[in-house]
Order: sequence, then C-alpha cells, then structure tokens
Amino acid sequence: METFFSFLEKRVDDSSSLLCVGLDPHVSDLPSPTAASALTFSLNLVKQTARYAAAFKPNAAFFEVFGAEGWTALKQVIEAIREESDRMGSRIPIILDAKRGDISSTAEAYAQSAFESLGVDCITLNPYLGKDSIAPFLGYDERGVFLLCKTSNPGSGDLQDVKLETGEALHIHVAKLAQTWNTRNNIGLVVGATHPQVMENVRTAAPSLWFLAPGVGAQGGELKAALKAGLRADGKGVLLPMSRAISRAENPGKAAADIRDEILHITRELKSR
Amino acid sequence: METFFSFLEKRVDDSSSLLCVGLDPHVSDLPSPTAASALTFSLNLVKQTARYAAAFKPNAAFFEVFGAEGWTALKQVIEAIREESDRMGSRIPIILDAKRGDISSTAEAYAQSAFESLGVDCITLNPYLGKDSIAPFLGYDERGVFLLCKTSNPGSGDLQDVKLETGEALHIHVAKLAQTWNTRNNIGLVVGATHPQVMENVRTAAPSLWFLAPGVGAQGGELKAALKAGLRADGKGVLLPMSRAISRAENPGKAAADIRDEILHITRELKSR
Repeated sequence: METFFSFLEKRVDDSSSLLCVGLDPHVSDLPSPTAASALTFSLNLVKQTARYAAAFKPNAAFFEVFGAEGWTALKQVIEAIREESDRMGSRIPIILDAKRGDISSTAEAYAQSAFESLGVDCITLNPYLGKDSIAPFLGYDERGVFLLCKTSNPGSGDLQDVKLETGEALHIHVAKLAQTWNTRNNIGLVVGATHPQVMENVRTAAPSLWFLAPGVGAQGGELKAALKAGLRADGKGVLLPMSRAISRAENPGKAAADIRDEILHITRELKSR
Repeated sequence: METFFSFLEKRVDDSSSLLCVGLDPHVSDLPSPTAASALTFSLNLVKQTARYAAAFKPNAAFFEVFGAEGWTALKQVIEAIREESDRMGSRIPIILDAKRGDISSTAEAYAQSAFESLGVDCITLNPYLGKDSIAPFLGYDERGVFLLCKTSNPGSGDLQDVKLETGEALHIHVAKLAQTWNTRNNIGLVVGATHPQVMENVRTAAPSLWFLAPGVGAQGGELKAALKAGLRADGKGVLLPMSRAISRAENPGKAAADIRDEILHITRELKSR
C-alpha cells in the first residue's frame, strides 16, 4: 500500500520539485469578489504551474468565504488538478489548507468532508485538541496530514514558544509527539520557514517527518537558509508553499519554473557538500 | 454599542436559560445522508427548542460534509433562527462551532465567511496560532469568539495539560491570555464541563469570561458540579451546550424545557447559599 508521503516523494521525483503551489484566491487578487473569479484564478494557476508543482495547496478560507458557490468552485479546482495530473501521467498531491481540529464524530465529519466529499489527499490540522482529534484522519489509507507546529506569524509565540517545565518550547513538544504518532508515514509538520534556527530545532526533534514550510520568499538567500535547516539527509523532507510570488508574477508559469529550478539548484549544492 | 456578551446576557435574561442548543445533524442521526435531511433535522430542532435556548450552536462540520449543499443548508438554518427570533421578539445568538484558526488574510477570510457570508454572531476558534490569528474576528462590532481552552476529549491533555515552566498547565496560560485580550467584551472560553476541578481553576484564571462548557449530560448531578465550578458571582458566565440529549429525546421541545428548568433550579439554589 502506498502511504501519503511515499506518494508525495514519487511526485517530488517526477517533477524534480519541492515547490508547493498555493491556490489562495484572495479577494484582493480577483477582478471581482465572486466564486467564479476565484475559480478562474485557480484554474489558471493550476494550468500554468502544474508541471513544476510537487503539490497543490488550495486554502479553504478563500473558497468558504463565497459560501456554497465557493465550495463548488473548490471542488472544481480539485477536479481540474486531477485532470492535469492525468494529462501529465503523474499524479499531483493536493493538500487542503484548512487547519481543522475537532473531536470524535465532529473530527470524523471533517475527515469525510476533506477526503471523501472534496477528495483531497492531505489536510493541515491544528494539534491543540490532541491525538484523538487527529486519529479519524489517520484512519484513511494513502491520505496524510500536516500538523501545525510552529507557524510564521508574529503571534505564533503566544502559545507555540511557551517554555515547558522540561525546558523545551511547546512547538518542540508537538514535533516530538508527531514523530511518535507517525507510525504509518502519514503525518508531517507545518514549520514556518521564516526562522531557520527554529526549523533546525524542529528537524532535530522530528528527524524523519516532512515539513510544509511557508513564509519564505522566492529569494535565493531565504530559500537556502530554509532548505539547509530543514532538509533531511536524503535531500527531501521540505515542501515550500508559495502563493503570491507565483500568482502575482507577470508569467506565473515561468515564475513557478524559476522557483522550482532555484530550489533544485540549492538542494544539489547542499547535497554536494 | 452592544457587545456580543451583553447581547448574550440579554437573551439569557429573556429566556431564563443557560442552555445552548447544539445543531449537530450527524449523519447517523439522519434518515438519509443528505443536506436536505440535515436541514430538516436542524429546522425541526430550532422550531421546537427556540423558546428555551439562550443560544444556538450549529456545528460547521456536519454541514460541510455535504459540500456546497450543506453550506446552503447551514445558511438556511441561520435564517430560520433569525425568523424564530423575530417571532418571539427576542434575538437568539448564533455561535458557529467551527474551531477555525489561521493567520493574516486567511483569518480575515474566515471571519468574513462566518460574520458576513453566514451572518452568525459568534464563532469558536483555536488559540494555537496566537493573538494575531484572533484579531480579525475581534474587529467586528457586536460579534464574539469562544477560544478553545480545555476540551472534554481524552486526548486534550496531550497539549492542553502540559506543564509550563511557571508550573501552570497550558490551558491556564490560554485562560489568562484570553482574560487579558478581552478588552472589548467579546472573548469567551471553551472549557469542558467534564472535570469540575479544571473548570474551577480556569474560572480563577479568567474571572470574568463566559465559558462554553460542553460534555455534561442532562443529569442533575453533573450539571450542578459544572455550574458550581464555573458560574460567576452574578449567576451567569456558563453556557451549557447540549445536542443529543435534546435531539434524540422523544420530544425535543420538552427535553429542552426540562433541561432549561433544571439549570435554572440549580442556579437559584447555588445563588441562595
């Protein structure tokens, strides 16, 4: 049986890419504040960037804001990624950025919503409610989750950096829990790429997990610091989500290709050391 | 200007109730697994229980699982609560149980989705991403949030009970933060009613905040322990959400009335001591 992360790694190999293309149809980036506009925006990005994407990451909030029509658009975007995958002969993992987190039958409903109704491969989850809130998602074969560990926003320290009596920060506790819980190769971590030292610490706490590492720009220096801090010994383990650096570029396809190549260049350089 | 919690307190007075009727159209409780069934289930509950409800709490997951149709049903349920409110001449607060949590423009989109697209009065949020993830919701006048503090599930201890270097548990840290952040009377806490001692500790840490306290049955003993631990000196401050104790009763209207009365009885008893 294929696990989510073996599936992701196959696509990483097929595409020579660690780039995760974010599909964030924020209303300020749309010609009109409608679900139809969000759909066009997203389909256009999918078409132009699929070749260079190790994964796609639609963000639920920017569809949900349009109510039922937004939900229909999200479903259509997911179907379009499947079609593009078929065309290329290489299936692209879809990570729903939804940051859900609830318990028992409610968690089951969210898992069903993501993995069955929408049909995505992976979802971002909030770990605050503990292992049993994650369990219903882990019950799905070949699907995966990324647990929030250390986010890139200024307020992330309010909880995530709080020092425990063991002397470690809460986000390190979460990283260690996730490493322990990952018995079926279907748990990764969201670790902001903005602080390479933090990422290095999380890598020590969770040596084998994949990181979804947002917050880094397309600039070479930032990219290099993040990859150096987060990559595993096998040169994998970090997925870099980028949204506006691509969607706002004059030519999103070329922007995605350039970022993919830059990441590849840095990864090879780091490996050859 | 009215704040969310002054609005809630007005309704608590109007209804002599601390009962929050949960609208959880779980698929196992529906005659068929469809959005139409979820809608009928919810509308029926609203109609039968509105007189006794201090608030309604629809759970997003059980609608989201039906995709776009579920989202439409949720919107219709919210409208039906507004109509019922108009009929009674007393507006009933609607708390969307969604446990969202994200940053910057994504948090803004979730706030817009809840408060504008759906038009609810309040939402449950996850505090793991810190104050700036809450801020976009607090910017709405007359709306409120309940932050997850200590949940009622077995795994809640994985993070929420972790001891900090100050010696206090993480959920106490969250309670204190929420008390500090609550400068506009629009922040409450989700505190499981299953452990009265925990609730008492959270009450000490957050003396003035409203608690949304799930997990307690309709039994008198459990109710009394929870209310004793959580009520403020003014005999308010605890909202008790109940779902299946009402929806699975032969007569949901009577069940809601009985629970409302039992809570009222206990509250008066505790006050007279």
